Amino acid sequence: MVISAKQASVCVLGTGLIGGSLLRAAVTAGYVAWGYNRTPAGAHAARADGFDVTEDLPAALRRAEETDALIVIAVPMPAVDHMLSAIATFAPHCPLTDVVSVKAPVAAAMREHGLIDRYVGGHPMAGTSESGWTATDPGLFHDAVWAVGVDEEVRAELWTRVVRLALACGSVVVPVVAAEHDRAVARISHLPHVLAEALALAGAAGGDLALGLAAGSFRDGTRVAGTAPDLVRAICEPNSGALLEVLDETLRVLDAAREQLRTEHSLTDLAEAGHTARLRYASARRWEITGIRPGEHDWLERLRAAGARGGVLTRLD
Amino acid sequence: MVISAKQASVCVLGTGLIGGSLLRAAVTAGYVAWGYNRTPAGAHAARADGFDVTEDLPAALRRAEETDALIVIAVPMPAVDHMLSAIATFAPHCPLTDVVSVKAPVAAAMREHGLIDRYVGGHPMAGTSESGWTATDPGLFHDAVWAVGVDEEVRAELWTRVVRLALACGSVVVPVVAAEHDRAVARISHLPHVLAEALALAGAAGGDLALGLAAGSFRDGTRVAGTAPDLVRAICEPNSGALLEVLDETLRVLDAAREQLRTEHSLTDLAEAGHTARLRYASARRWEITGIRPGEHDWLERLRAAGARGGVLTRLD
Repeated sequence: MVISAKQASVCVLGTGLIGGSLLRAAVTAGYVAWGYNRTPAGAHAARADGFDVTEDLPAALRRAEETDALIVIAVPMPAVDHMLSAIATFAPHCPLTDVVSVKAPVAAAMREHGLIDRYVGGHPMAGTSESGWTATDPGLFHDAVWAVGVDEEVRAELWTRVVRLALACGSVVVPVVAAEHDRAVARISHLPHVLAEALALAGAAGGDLALGLAAGSFRDGTRVAGTAPDLVRAICEPNSGALLEVLDETLRVLDAAREQLRTEHSLTDLAEAGHTARLRYASARRWEITGIRPGEHDWLERLRAAGARGGVLTRLD
Repeated sequence: MVISAKQASVCVLGTGLIGGSLLRAAVTAGYVAWGYNRTPAGAHAARADGFDVTEDLPAALRRAEETDALIVIAVPMPAVDHMLSAIATFAPHCPLTDVVSVKAPVAAAMREHGLIDRYVGGHPMAGTSESGWTATDPGLFHDAVWAVGVDEEVRAELWTRVVRLALACGSVVVPVVAAEHDRAVARISHLPHVLAEALALAGAAGGDLALGLAAGSFRDGTRVAGTAPDLVRAICEPNSGALLEVLDETLRVLDAAREQLRTEHSLTDLAEAGHTARLRYASARRWEITGIRPGEHDWLERLRAAGARGGVLTRLD
């Protein structure tokens, strides 16, 4: 992908697993990219690998302001407010996106800071249970899905710029509004964390014997419980409302399964329905959204409808 | 491992994923091994790959009786009773083991058929969500854990023979009594199935958007929901009692997490405890049981104690 000189700069705030991988992917794709990291150790590790990462937030932001860089907020939700204050002070005209795991709370913070007009939300659906610069990988987003906001206030030019960055990192783009995104990730990202933690607890309560007998199903089912607890909290807690909703739904499903197991010694209903659901997931195919030009009549509405039906953008004309 | 001529024969009843892989692994290890499969298609597929598999159960069992073969029951629990009837008729003197996912119900069936004195239970902790001969793999048991019974009635000579087969297939052996095994696998094998089905349902209820955004945590967390529902039922339902116990325990954990999320918008307790549990699993190390000779005073009791503390047998002296 050819990037125009004017849109060639990216400033990444937070160079942990996601932000650091994004910095590496952007540089690989030909962007002029630099970053800020709160901890000197993280910034030093990035510099040692040849990347331009500073612990000086004002300096990173002033440079963004001077070059009209796209600022990517890549810190956990609890640190977003502090970033926005600094942006409002040191880079008041820069376009903004983010890679935070929830979208409505970030949009609300943008509104509070008077930055919503310059913001298009983003969320690459990629990660590992590792964290920090040492875990970064420029290929992390390759063939991943990257949610990009299509909320009412989104402006076509900025939206295009954010989508270009996502595509340049090797992802496909799902257009989605903040509230729908948050409800969806509660189901496919936050609930998996909750269930993985609960499964890990159930296994460990069986002692050395149970853990010694554990094989693939337990290993895979508990993998994301390996994520640092603070990070799990930073991911899940800002989405409490949507997570509670799907957790309640799941508790009802498990209660019903428990009753059938108790009264009939049978798991029929859960096993059949769960298998059908997994087949639906396994057989789902991405289809390409085409023919919608950013800024034209009804473009946001049409993108929303396409995203809801499983469509993705793989290029911009 | 050198196998004596007298103990070189194995008859595998059921050549699906586990039994078929065992047949292949035994042949690779130098055993004379043959099998029985209920469906002609499965038996034909095995024969096409050069393995001696018949649909004629009496013939397979008569051959076992003539050669003092170790019979391995590798059918789902619901089909065990039929196998035992045939064994009592056509191979009344053969030593018996099994690879069924629960141990106490198989032992109970052995008692009913008057076969318990010739039986040592087994359960290799290996598998995939695939099934049938086409999914078989002679390396399936390599470096896996294979539970072998050390219940009161176990005889040293037969126990040694079953352990030798497990080791010859590349596994390490965990000595465990039937009831303890069943409680442990409820935690690390059957509960993972239940939670995976529930997670798959929660994701699919989010429609194409949620499934389209799903990444690693959802894929891994739902993997075993890809197992055929009949097989999930055959694995979990015979262990209803132990599964109910750990499911209730897990429902209490999830209810508590729900309450903390609702009242404090916090997942602290679950995230901390789950992470600690996962670390305990990830850092658990097998240690080698040595110095216990089958048949010597207290050998079963000592093996049980060692297995409960995470010990494994990697060789027989």
